[in-house]
Amino acid sequence: MKAADSIIHARWVIPVSPTSQVLENHSLIIQQDKIIDILPSAEAKAQYQSDQQYHLTDHALIPGLVNCHAHAAMSLFRGLADDLPLMSWLQEHIWPAESKFVSPSFVEDGTRLAIAEMLRCGTTCFNNMYFFNQQEADICQQAGIRASSGLPVLEFPTAYASGPDEYFEKGLAHIDYIKDMPLVTATWAPHAPYTVSDVSFEKVAELSAKYQMPIQLHLHESKQEIEDSIKQFGVRPQERLTRTGIINKYLQAVHFTQATEQEIEQLAAAGASMVHCPESNLKLASGFAPIGRLQKAGINIAIGTDGAASNNDLDMIGEMRTAAMLAKAVAEDATALSASEALYAATMGGAKAMHLDDKIGSLEVGKFADIAAINLSDLECQPMYNPISQIVYAVSRHQVSHTWVAGRCLLNERQLTSDCLNQSELVSIATQWRDKIAQ
Amino acid sequence: MKAADSIIHARWVIPVSPTSQVLENHSLIIQQDKIIDILPSAEAKAQYQSDQQYHLTDHALIPGLVNCHAHAAMSLFRGLADDLPLMSWLQEHIWPAESKFVSPSFVEDGTRLAIAEMLRCGTTCFNNMYFFNQQEADICQQAGIRASSGLPVLEFPTAYASGPDEYFEKGLAHIDYIKDMPLVTATWAPHAPYTVSDVSFEKVAELSAKYQMPIQLHLHESKQEIEDSIKQFGVRPQERLTRTGIINKYLQAVHFTQATEQEIEQLAAAGASMVHCPESNLKLASGFAPIGRLQKAGINIAIGTDGAASNNDLDMIGEMRTAAMLAKAVAEDATALSASEALYAATMGGAKAMHLDDKIGSLEVGKFADIAAINLSDLECQPMYNPISQIVYAVSRHQVSHTWVAGRCLLNERQLTSDCLNQSELVSIATQWRDKIAQ
Repeated sequence: MKAADSIIHARWVIPVSPTSQVLENHSLIIQQDKIIDILPSAEAKAQYQSDQQYHLTDHALIPGLVNCHAHAAMSLFRGLADDLPLMSWLQEHIWPAESKFVSPSFVEDGTRLAIAEMLRCGTTCFNNMYFFNQQEADICQQAGIRASSGLPVLEFPTAYASGPDEYFEKGLAHIDYIKDMPLVTATWAPHAPYTVSDVSFEKVAELSAKYQMPIQLHLHESKQEIEDSIKQFGVRPQERLTRTGIINKYLQAVHFTQATEQEIEQLAAAGASMVHCPESNLKLASGFAPIGRLQKAGINIAIGTDGAASNNDLDMIGEMRTAAMLAKAVAEDATALSASEALYAATMGGAKAMHLDDKIGSLEVGKFADIAAINLSDLECQPMYNPISQIVYAVSRHQVSHTWVAGRCLLNERQLTSDCLNQSELVSIATQWRDKIAQ
Repeated sequence: MKAADSIIHARWVIPVSPTSQVLENHSLIIQQDKIIDILPSAEAKAQYQSDQQYHLTDHALIPGLVNCHAHAAMSLFRGLADDLPLMSWLQEHIWPAESKFVSPSFVEDGTRLAIAEMLRCGTTCFNNMYFFNQQEADICQQAGIRASSGLPVLEFPTAYASGPDEYFEKGLAHIDYIKDMPLVTATWAPHAPYTVSDVSFEKVAELSAKYQMPIQLHLHESKQEIEDSIKQFGVRPQERLTRTGIINKYLQAVHFTQATEQEIEQLAAAGASMVHCPESNLKLASGFAPIGRLQKAGINIAIGTDGAASNNDLDMIGEMRTAAMLAKAVAEDATALSASEALYAATMGGAKAMHLDDKIGSLEVGKFADIAAINLSDLECQPMYNPISQIVYAVSRHQVSHTWVAGRCLLNERQLTSDCLNQSELVSIATQWRDKIAQ
């Protein structure tokens, strides 16, 4: 008998790579932070022993979900301003609230609330874009969730920095700050074409190449962005950005609801990823991302929730479902983004976009043990013809029973285990922020 | 002190009529099957006594959700065939499976599974379209849920009837069968323009007027339906149906993704209702219903889940959310179908379409006590700026804690109370059907 740190026996194991595979009555063997074996449960019981065994008789294991676009701390603005278009939502509500309230303690508290919500829906890694990266990284490391800190770049001042020079300075300092944090990486995060100058984009492109870091960018989010760019620069944003060197394999084009065939071909040729945030695009009336066309062009598609202020949750189970359903009507093709493809986008797609696909995104020997377990025994999932179909089209996030990151169980039978994620404390902190903000 | 059968004390009460109102710390007083008073909890405690009191300190009460379009028994086909267009899904998968398996016992078992799912998401009334109405009505009455049996009309034979004459004969017999059932009404349910003849539509119009009964019809569900009608009849379906007298105040136009301005004006002038099934329309790539335009025309909008075979659930909380989000992107107007309007559509809108709005659809004195309680204490609903926003945009169905129909508590702290809705028995029955059907 071989010793293991923990063993998870499950009714179904869905590795995602290879796509569509469903293993029945299999077990995952975990040693330290890695998956070291995947085999039939009968063989696992004969070959391995561990003091920590999970017997998940009604559950499917999937790779932990990768939320590829979030503004975690904005959870404290959830439901503050609804039913408004993108620009008035930003200019009249969100930016004023941010300028008044965003601070290190806001980021600490909001990020904690967000991490708790994400772990409770099976998300094990998130790609964030916000301010006060040190506080954010510290909280992720304490909570035990994997994340990438988006290093913000903007032309205008915020509570975090006075202008582009200071954003870059703080970004570079942050790369150094996280160098010994095993769970946290960093991404350059120029906010959007309409808030970042060509000079800053050029600098981002240069630093991204130098440090081999992904670039997260709101790109072609709405028609208005395109129209404004044509007015101001004479060209669509993507064409303008091409000149700055930013359209490359490190780019994560977030939202991307507006796209010509040529623009799609260019993204595909560059090896860039697209990050789909369907619910934010719907709720803010930003538009419909052409997922079917992007799939046909072979572009890697990831899924993100966007911030809870626009969406209004960080529920990757729901986002995956919306993505799968919406793609069909937009493409006028009910085969677009199938259940398997949606699950792939929500796991491996995100891992690829983050350049972490050698480490996470699928349940494979040698990868980190980032895993979610979903209880499929509820009557809402019956009859069980196909677990992948039920997970994408019928499950809701409350059925996620367990979440592990790097082998550590952070959600156990729906209970958060991290000391820094006490549920009643989080609710009470959120209420205190509401009392301040709602005034 | 006045005696009451039961009293529900709640942190928030959202009556829906008047729209947008949120009462804090109020109580509902229930006597027999009706709401007899709504007042501040302090006053309720001073004025009323009851042995049955619910203290819902973190909850919002809303009117029970009205699922205005379902094929309940089809829950047994949930996930049988996904990622397929409407016509191949129907012709190659659903109709063959129906012709092989649909029977009185299929309808009994499938309807029970569906009712359990609906009560667990706060649905207290559903507008059904399926076969074997007697079995369906018996199960609804036993389970205690409110429903309307759609009396099917088709030109072709099914396991239920040999052709139009027998459908009408069985429909008329059913009106008699349910006359002493307080929870069950009936609706004429001609399936669709492409499966029902002009003669049958004329007869439906006549019988609907005679019995003052609503008419449930899949209308303008997809582009293909329009194109086929133009080929076969030379006109679009709505124009053809106008001649049969069926476009009137009793009509429930289900799906209605395709609409000219003139067609919208005609529906509005007729006082017909539109039943929106956004998730089915997305998943089958049927199209986008023009909710913003229908709202502007003043048409009553209801919401339905469609059957779990296409959608793949009967979750009205999720459907309401999808409706609210999707309407904005389709209208290119983020103010379309606000949170309050979506909640109205999912309650009063359905009640109006079913011609039951004098009895259900809102929390008002004199109406039936059809109520759902939603626990808003989860961290996914924090901070709490506005309960209506959180219910529509952030809640998921597992937060529904209680459901009452006609004053009877059918879901109590997430547990179904009806003898005929035993959860483990339902899962086991569904599994037996799967074993037969999946072969």
